[in-house]
Amino acid sequence: MEQLRLDDQMTALSQAAGTSMLELVRELYPIMRSITGPGLRATVRRLSAVVPLNITEVPTGTRVFDWTVPDEWRIEEAYIENESGQRFADMRDCNLHVVNYSIPVEMTLTLSELRPHLHSVPEHPDWVPYRTSYYQRDWGFCLADRQLRSLPEGRYRVVIRSTLAPGSLTLAEYLHRGAIEDEILVFAHDCHPSLANDNLSGVAVAIHLAAFLRTRKTRYSYRFLFCPTTIGSLAWLAMNEANLGRIRHGLVLSLLGDSGPLQYKRSPTGDRPIDRAAWYVLHREFPGSQLREFAPWGYDERQFCSPGINLPVGRLTRTPNGEFDEYHTSADNPDLLSPTSLGEAWLACAKIFEALEADRCYVNLSPKGEPQLGRRGLYQAMGGYRDIAERQLAMLWMLNQSNGNTSVLNIAERSNMPIGLLADATLALEKADLLSPVQPVAKPVYKW
Amino acid sequence: MEQLRLDDQMTALSQAAGTSMLELVRELYPIMRSITGPGLRATVRRLSAVVPLNITEVPTGTRVFDWTVPDEWRIEEAYIENESGQRFADMRDCNLHVVNYSIPVEMTLTLSELRPHLHSVPEHPDWVPYRTSYYQRDWGFCLADRQLRSLPEGRYRVVIRSTLAPGSLTLAEYLHRGAIEDEILVFAHDCHPSLANDNLSGVAVAIHLAAFLRTRKTRYSYRFLFCPTTIGSLAWLAMNEANLGRIRHGLVLSLLGDSGPLQYKRSPTGDRPIDRAAWYVLHREFPGSQLREFAPWGYDERQFCSPGINLPVGRLTRTPNGEFDEYHTSADNPDLLSPTSLGEAWLACAKIFEALEADRCYVNLSPKGEPQLGRRGLYQAMGGYRDIAERQLAMLWMLNQSNGNTSVLNIAERSNMPIGLLADATLALEKADLLSPVQPVAKPVYKW
Amino acid sequence: MEQLRLDDQMTALSQAAGTSMLELVRELYPIMRSITGPGLRATVRRLSAVVPLNITEVPTGTRVFDWTVPDEWRIEEAYIENESGQRFADMRDCNLHVVNYSIPVEMTLTLSELRPHLHSVPEHPDWVPYRTSYYQRDWGFCLADRQLRSLPEGRYRVVIRSTLAPGSLTLAEYLHRGAIEDEILVFAHDCHPSLANDNLSGVAVAIHLAAFLRTRKTRYSYRFLFCPTTIGSLAWLAMNEANLGRIRHGLVLSLLGDSGPLQYKRSPTGDRPIDRAAWYVLHREFPGSQLREFAPWGYDERQFCSPGINLPVGRLTRTPNGEFDEYHTSADNPDLLSPTSLGEAWLACAKIFEALEADRCYVNLSPKGEPQLGRRGLYQAMGGYRDIAERQLAMLWMLNQSNGNTSVLNIAERSNMPIGLLADATLALEKADLLSPVQPVAKPVYKW
Repeated sequence: MEQLRLDDQMTALSQAAGTSMLELVRELYPIMRSITGPGLRATVRRLSAVVPLNITEVPTGTRVFDWTVPDEWRIEEAYIENESGQRFADMRDCNLHVVNYSIPVEMTLTLSELRPHLHSVPEHPDWVPYRTSYYQRDWGFCLADRQLRSLPEGRYRVVIRSTLAPGSLTLAEYLHRGAIEDEILVFAHDCHPSLANDNLSGVAVAIHLAAFLRTRKTRYSYRFLFCPTTIGSLAWLAMNEANLGRIRHGLVLSLLGDSGPLQYKRSPTGDRPIDRAAWYVLHREFPGSQLREFAPWGYDERQFCSPGINLPVGRLTRTPNGEFDEYHTSADNPDLLSPTSLGEAWLACAKIFEALEADRCYVNLSPKGEPQLGRRGLYQAMGGYRDIAERQLAMLWMLNQSNGNTSVLNIAERSNMPIGLLADATLALEKADLLSPVQPVAKPVYKW
Repeated sequence: MEQLRLDDQMTALSQAAGTSMLELVRELYPIMRSITGPGLRATVRRLSAVVPLNITEVPTGTRVFDWTVPDEWRIEEAYIENESGQRFADMRDCNLHVVNYSIPVEMTLTLSELRPHLHSVPEHPDWVPYRTSYYQRDWGFCLADRQLRSLPEGRYRVVIRSTLAPGSLTLAEYLHRGAIEDEILVFAHDCHPSLANDNLSGVAVAIHLAAFLRTRKTRYSYRFLFCPTTIGSLAWLAMNEANLGRIRHGLVLSLLGDSGPLQYKRSPTGDRPIDRAAWYVLHREFPGSQLREFAPWGYDERQFCSPGINLPVGRLTRTPNGEFDEYHTSADNPDLLSPTSLGEAWLACAKIFEALEADRCYVNLSPKGEPQLGRRGLYQAMGGYRDIAERQLAMLWMLNQSNGNTSVLNIAERSNMPIGLLADATLALEKADLLSPVQPVAKPVYKW
Repeated sequence: MEQLRLDDQMTALSQAAGTSMLELVRELYPIMRSITGPGLRATVRRLSAVVPLNITEVPTGTRVFDWTVPDEWRIEEAYIENESGQRFADMRDCNLHVVNYSIPVEMTLTLSELRPHLHSVPEHPDWVPYRTSYYQRDWGFCLADRQLRSLPEGRYRVVIRSTLAPGSLTLAEYLHRGAIEDEILVFAHDCHPSLANDNLSGVAVAIHLAAFLRTRKTRYSYRFLFCPTTIGSLAWLAMNEANLGRIRHGLVLSLLGDSGPLQYKRSPTGDRPIDRAAWYVLHREFPGSQLREFAPWGYDERQFCSPGINLPVGRLTRTPNGEFDEYHTSADNPDLLSPTSLGEAWLACAKIFEALEADRCYVNLSPKGEPQLGRRGLYQAMGGYRDIAERQLAMLWMLNQSNGNTSVLNIAERSNMPIGLLADATLALEKADLLSPVQPVAKPVYKW
């Protein structure tokens, strides 16, 4: 059966992918995105040039579980202007200046009347923060704290030329078909305007993984989702609820371009194959990687891992949300990212996929004692040496452990051998009719 | 439903309770107690002035499991006197001078004939030890080793004016009724004469916990037992065997007044809710607390945790029995205790009760994705901040984990959040119809 | 019921056994052994002088699982000779000079033609390595590297006077009958020529354990197997497959005479009683002992622990195969061994057997509260002391934990008490009708 196996070219491929991903981030960065609207559509159009995405428009007003898709937001212009005609917080300078989803406003206010609508981060006086008000109708501006504190007294004209009106929510996906219908889900939120690490980095890694898999045969099918955070993942889940049983493993990608170590956040139970495969790969092959337990705070793993959805979804980031200074400010720009960080994250995902594809249970067809590998040419003829070749040891592990219930990943964890080596040993033993894969039992889907 | 919730007043209450408890200890200390008899009755009479106790007199000769209630012991006077009329080991000076349960004696002996009946602790030459002979008829005196070694040669008149005769064993209990009949059992042995830490400290903490709960609504009912050690707990268990299934959690209290750290001793399996609640509270809120595994040696947890009784009972002490120098000697007097130590132990118990009351399983009524807390006023309207308020995070934890099988204590252990915060979040979510408590399954009672 | 209990004589016995074992090793060392043939037969004949062994000859050509018993090998003479008549690698000097199972050869070759048939260990230029070619017809010589590198150019006459012909494979066993038919299996491979630690040390320890058990009553039966490695254990397993269910615990012995610490290698699941008993004994009583996880590389545990055989077999060695320099070279000679190391290994095995014999489940016949041990003379009459005698504490542990499912080994692990003390307490409680052994449930045999 087809199975993803990586080769010596992967390091070179990951370096090239790193450069290409950062270029894509720089191209997408200036677009004014939100959870709905034309900026979001422009973004998925650009991604479709990498791999052709399937677009779904969900009408505003649609109920998705406990939520309703909000009116679509479009914005032309936003600024504040003092009596001398000086403009501040002009959206043309930086998309973050206007609170995302601000209602239309045109009025004149005193500075003290305006103040409650102005947001800044005093700890970083030159950075503009990112604020949103998707579900409560409000408006506001975000400024560098230094500028906010230096605003002269007087009256200000406030202009926000936006609309909130019926329209739709844009979801985009790409399905790579493998040998079986069971799927690995890869999710990246694509709604943040002019924030590079959060989450153009995740978007870029995901679309480049999709492009890579297009060139390979795989066992699993892979579904890549690009959706606005929360309402987007919820809408996709609500529309695809009948088919969620196909998803065997999932990964949320975000914050992958900074210089921090890779961090894998476990699913709620912490022991799903995705949890074990991800950590196996990271701790062996990406020194310094960190593991963190699930918490119901972060990105869309909050939705995938809610008790009534209960998908086995983990999250890969570098420095997590809220834990680096530039998070949700104008300082999260493309200069924060490096091709090396992006490329390494891409490679880590590919290796996790490889491990998941290799992770099957086998049954030893010659289980009484060791089979005589020597007469099959699988074992050295001369005996008495101190050591055994790694490949032979991998075969002995597979034979010893393959009782039908112990998967390749279990064996890798126990033996501390590379998954790839075990996968190769497995192939050799299958060819020699000494191992046979066990059909997986039906997935125990969580029925609410 | 009613549920014990502690407030900001608890620290102040615990300080006042500490002072009151030490006064009670000083008052009870001089009484000549034993496992039966008038001293024991005087003790429970004094406790009844704090909360009204229900007294049960078990006739001597009654079979309790493998044991028989022994004859009641009364004692008037005990001393030894040399030929010059000088008295030693006079019970009037110290109750410990006479071996507890000594038979009546009036005879004259040489010093060497007397010696096998004299007990001391050579390591602490000025302290009088505590010795008993409840079930084998014997007599003796306990002296400071310095005095024992300086006894002049010669003949000694031995006088013990005691009786061993039919009567009864005195058990005392207080039941605080909560919303449900399931009980939390609190046990303190009350038979030791003139020993302060062992166990007037435990008695004082228990009766003050009873007094506190009288002023509060609780979910559980609470049963406080004051009984002589071993025969007392066995008699109570034998008489109440049919109702032991009501006891969901239990705590033996003793040795709570010294300056050592709080120590929780686990039940035999070590994983009962009382074990987890006690340690959760102690390690978070009482720094320096220690955890010890069960061993069949100590106080009446030996009986509650015997295989045919098998109640989930742990033990709270400070320095355990046998591990402090003053243990079972005249040096275990009220000066060894402090109001702070007593008050803190009292507070720890109250917090353990609070945790047990909060510890229920809930089911998320909106389990597909996160419910939209914002439109219910439970979540901040403006988004984009680095952090989330603790109370909101507590709600997300409750929603994410509430699949009907995961209790509040499980969630507290995982999230490392205070139980009280989770209890408050639970309340808010219940009010919003987002969570519903699950009825507990019938308790799996150990049937012998 | 009979049960092995060790006494104070064991240390003295182990010292005497150590001396006797090293003498036996020195006597067996010069014999030219292989996996078949006269040397192997001479070896088991010598062992039969210690305890009478039951010999089975398995005809060559017999199928055993995936293998076939190879032709029997006999060898008279082997050497290489240069044109000046100088002989090298003469088997008369060292049995290791000829590759074990070499086919008959008589020819003249140039040095460069000969080279591919010459084996050495460059890291240890004066040692002769051990090489075999049992299953692929080949020939060769093993030399000290210093000698190999100094061989003069020229032509060499190669002489190997061997035969490979129908015959049989020699298996030897000794069964010590205990009170029950359930068996403890002890295995030592006996096929290596002139290697002392590997595995005359294991053979000597095993035969001396058999001799010791002959003098004792035991609960289990003990089966000692002396077989050639791999093909020998496989042949024994194939012939005894129907009775493997009798084997409750097993131990492979090898490499027990060097100065390294004792090392126990776990069975594949790592939690079988043999695993727990062995480690309990070693870590308590043989300081410095080491524990290692199962790996499918080593000695005949590879066969016993294959998935279709699945016996609970561990392995006891000192420095494991391949981890000491002298391994599989002429430097593994009797001078590497000490009577102390051999005697200590023998004692460790005896103590492991004692632990396994003691390891039963009991049920407390007076389970409600503690029974009154005092009136049965099992507990001190006078109370109030700081401590309790160890023997009394052992009784309390047995009573508290004996719910029918918890074995003596579980209790030993929890209480950290010596197995022997618990065994004695158990006996006293059985005599007092307070404990009763539980019949073991039928062994859950692995059915392939």
